[in-house]
Amino acid sequence: QLKWYLNNLQPFDVGEYITHLPEKQRAIAFRLLNKNQAIDVFEYLPHKVQGELINSLHDVQVAQIVEEMSPDERVILFDELPAKVVKRLLRELSPEQRQVTATILGYPEGTAGRLMTTEYVRLQQGLTVGEALSKIRYQDEDKETIYYAYVTDENRKLFSVISLRQLLFTFPDVFVGNVASNRVIKVSTETSQEEAAQVMKRYDLIALPVVDREDRLVGIITIDDVFDILEEEATEDIQKLAGISGDEAALASPQVTVRKRLPWLLCNIFLYITAASVIAPFQKIITVVPVLAIIMPILANSSGNVAFQVLSVTVRGLGVGEITPKDTMKLLRKELLAGLGIACGLGLALTTLSMIWSPPDDRWISFIAGSVMIVNVLIAVILGTLLPMGFKRLKLDPALISGPLMTTTLDAIGFLTFLSMISVMLKIVD
Amino acid sequence: QLKWYLNNLQPFDVGEYITHLPEKQRAIAFRLLNKNQAIDVFEYLPHKVQGELINSLHDVQVAQIVEEMSPDERVILFDELPAKVVKRLLRELSPEQRQVTATILGYPEGTAGRLMTTEYVRLQQGLTVGEALSKIRYQDEDKETIYYAYVTDENRKLFSVISLRQLLFTFPDVFVGNVASNRVIKVSTETSQEEAAQVMKRYDLIALPVVDREDRLVGIITIDDVFDILEEEATEDIQKLAGISGDEAALASPQVTVRKRLPWLLCNIFLYITAASVIAPFQKIITVVPVLAIIMPILANSSGNVAFQVLSVTVRGLGVGEITPKDTMKLLRKELLAGLGIACGLGLALTTLSMIWSPPDDRWISFIAGSVMIVNVLIAVILGTLLPMGFKRLKLDPALISGPLMTTTLDAIGFLTFLSMISVMLKIVD
Ligand SMILES: [Mg+2]
Ligand SMILES: [Mg+2]
Ligand SMILES: [Mg+2]
Ligand SMILES: [Mg+2]
Ligand SMILES: [Mg+2]
Ligand SMILES: [Mg+2]
Ligand SMILES: [Mg+2]
Ligand SMILES: [Mg+2]
Ligand SMILES: [Mg+2]
Ligand SMILES: [Mg+2]
Ligand SMILES: [Mg+2]
Ligand SMILES: [Mg+2]
Ligand SMILES: [Mg+2]
Repeated sequence: QLKWYLNNLQPFDVGEYITHLPEKQRAIAFRLLNKNQAIDVFEYLPHKVQGELINSLHDVQVAQIVEEMSPDERVILFDELPAKVVKRLLRELSPEQRQVTATILGYPEGTAGRLMTTEYVRLQQGLTVGEALSKIRYQDEDKETIYYAYVTDENRKLFSVISLRQLLFTFPDVFVGNVASNRVIKVSTETSQEEAAQVMKRYDLIALPVVDREDRLVGIITIDDVFDILEEEATEDIQKLAGISGDEAALASPQVTVRKRLPWLLCNIFLYITAASVIAPFQKIITVVPVLAIIMPILANSSGNVAFQVLSVTVRGLGVGEITPKDTMKLLRKELLAGLGIACGLGLALTTLSMIWSPPDDRWISFIAGSVMIVNVLIAVILGTLLPMGFKRLKLDPALISGPLMTTTLDAIGFLTFLSMISVMLKIVD
Repeated sequence: QLKWYLNNLQPFDVGEYITHLPEKQRAIAFRLLNKNQAIDVFEYLPHKVQGELINSLHDVQVAQIVEEMSPDERVILFDELPAKVVKRLLRELSPEQRQVTATILGYPEGTAGRLMTTEYVRLQQGLTVGEALSKIRYQDEDKETIYYAYVTDENRKLFSVISLRQLLFTFPDVFVGNVASNRVIKVSTETSQEEAAQVMKRYDLIALPVVDREDRLVGIITIDDVFDILEEEATEDIQKLAGISGDEAALASPQVTVRKRLPWLLCNIFLYITAASVIAPFQKIITVVPVLAIIMPILANSSGNVAFQVLSVTVRGLGVGEITPKDTMKLLRKELLAGLGIACGLGLALTTLSMIWSPPDDRWISFIAGSVMIVNVLIAVILGTLLPMGFKRLKLDPALISGPLMTTTLDAIGFLTFLSMISVMLKIVD
């Protein structure tokens, strides 16, 4: 029977089933869930569906679900709901949960404080391992993870951490203080969520304690949420590089899509116009040497592509924490060496190809094209490395240097250097 | 003192310290570590440094470290070492570890079987919770995680799973079979590592069991390794979109860099040449209407950028599992609607701008430019959606459709449609 299934399947799967129901049937299906399953399933629903259910379920049931949600999930939900609804829901929360929610909401979006949950296991100093274990066993079941326990003093100042694994492998009468690790890996509430994620990845943690300025434990970040953050951040980087602002879902509404993409495209057209006016004075040369009309776009396009490659490697390297602004010189050195190889390859290809195309009298143009290609590729490499590094150093998002803007800039530089070289040469020849 | 520090800091940090030492001092520093720390630190070293240490440490110490490594880390190491060294190291392993290593090495790269480790907790059917707990406590400490225990029969056929949390929260005399969950989320050894990662993300698991064709438990995948996979996969997608093959590290050697980037760039030049020969027959028109030389690149460039945006959203959506080939029509509908908005915006901008540039007699060209822009943007949208979806359906990597190739193709299409429109119009006007 449906009811039995809904209550016995994985919360994620039930959430997916309900999401795919027609809007009117969602509340009906959701009411078939028993209390615990309802809360678990609710946390897996998309925010849009959560909002709908809040409107269509009875107020009492809504209040109960919101009260029982994990504080971190509740905050994510509140971020999406209209302010009026949030106010009402906050009022209906128990004082304890209301305070916890307000605390997390008090930290800016994108920080560890905003990502954390307050449902962690805290042990007082001076317990034995046996006491600690029974404390963990008999507390309420609502902790996000019990696999780490954090040892604090009465003021919640964080002293040490011990894993449940260590607790289980130690004799019950040993003091926790003697086995717990004092070198606690922690982040502050103000740490960015990306940095917190990198810390967890580096040390292979499944939960990371978050402390305030006085080093008091205020929450933990768990790996499942960090997983989602890492994925979002990668998506954001990819999309910014492609000239899309913010993170657009693949199935976002057409209006949102236009709003995130059109500004960059328009911006790019204007940049292109500026670039075009740079070429305008040289138009006569093109009439004199028509083969330039074929060589120039190849030149511009290739160095644009090189810049895009360098840019994406640098942005991604910064994103995953493989490199930091400190590595600028090391990266530049590598990119210049590689760039030299690529430049020679492309320069040779362009010279050879344009030899075939150009009339016998204009063979010298091929050599200029080849050398301009080399110069341009090196410029591309330098810009692709230094711009994102500079942005990072200024604490701006390096992914803001979108690929299209970069390639357009290089188109302009390519045209300009090539045409001025040619015109200088033409004057010499004359 | 250095020795004390090295043995008491986090393995990751010690690994970083050793990696940054001059090559000759690495082995010396490493010898200061006591056995357990040495093994932990070794697992965090970059493969290159691991390889060096294997050459410079005593054979006995090497054998001991390799014996004690987690099987999954050992396999990753063996993948990087020369075959001769691997053979020697395999010979020195205990029969048990040799067999385990050979099993994992037997699965193709990129599969769940290759990513898994064999150090999991297995419980026989029919135990009570108390017996299970003491079995976990008194077994050897070498399990990758003890937070899930897997219940199997004598043939290792997987029946159910129970978390350590559930075990702790249940009375000791209850049978494990009565509380363990029979709806085990699992993957097969042949599942791709990306898919396994998506499953873990969806269900918020910290370990995922891997079964063979007979549904026998052969290993588990743990979240820390999946974390690395997700990051690698995102890097791969970004780089492929930018026209780089495989995953290039930001600080890779210049040779590797050239090898991963140059082929795409050369490929692109040839594509561009083909595109140029498409325009060649129209060269006279450009001489007649010189403003075309300014409008055409804008047109081509813009639709190329649109294609890149659509492509990156589609590839990323497929990558994170937000969309599957089943959603093709839904996605196409959204992209076409959004594309129409973007096309109108860009068409309008181009018409207005080219009005300013073009001589009064040639105003009609502006309208053609605007309408060709609309058509081209829609073509870009269709290609950017259908190509990666088609690749995915054919089980190819959608990220293979690199951005540069896509934009070059659209450059060519843009030139062609525009120029043929103009030449048709010119004939009508004449
Ligand atoms: Mg909860
Ligand atoms: Mg890791
Ligand atoms: Mg959470
Ligand atoms: Mg979550
Ligand atoms: Mg970012
Ligand atoms: Mg961000
Ligand atoms: Mg271009
Ligand atoms: Mg081990
Ligand atoms: Mg999740
Ligand atoms: Mg592992
Ligand atoms: Mg690992
Ligand atoms: Mg992939
Ligand atoms: Mg892959």
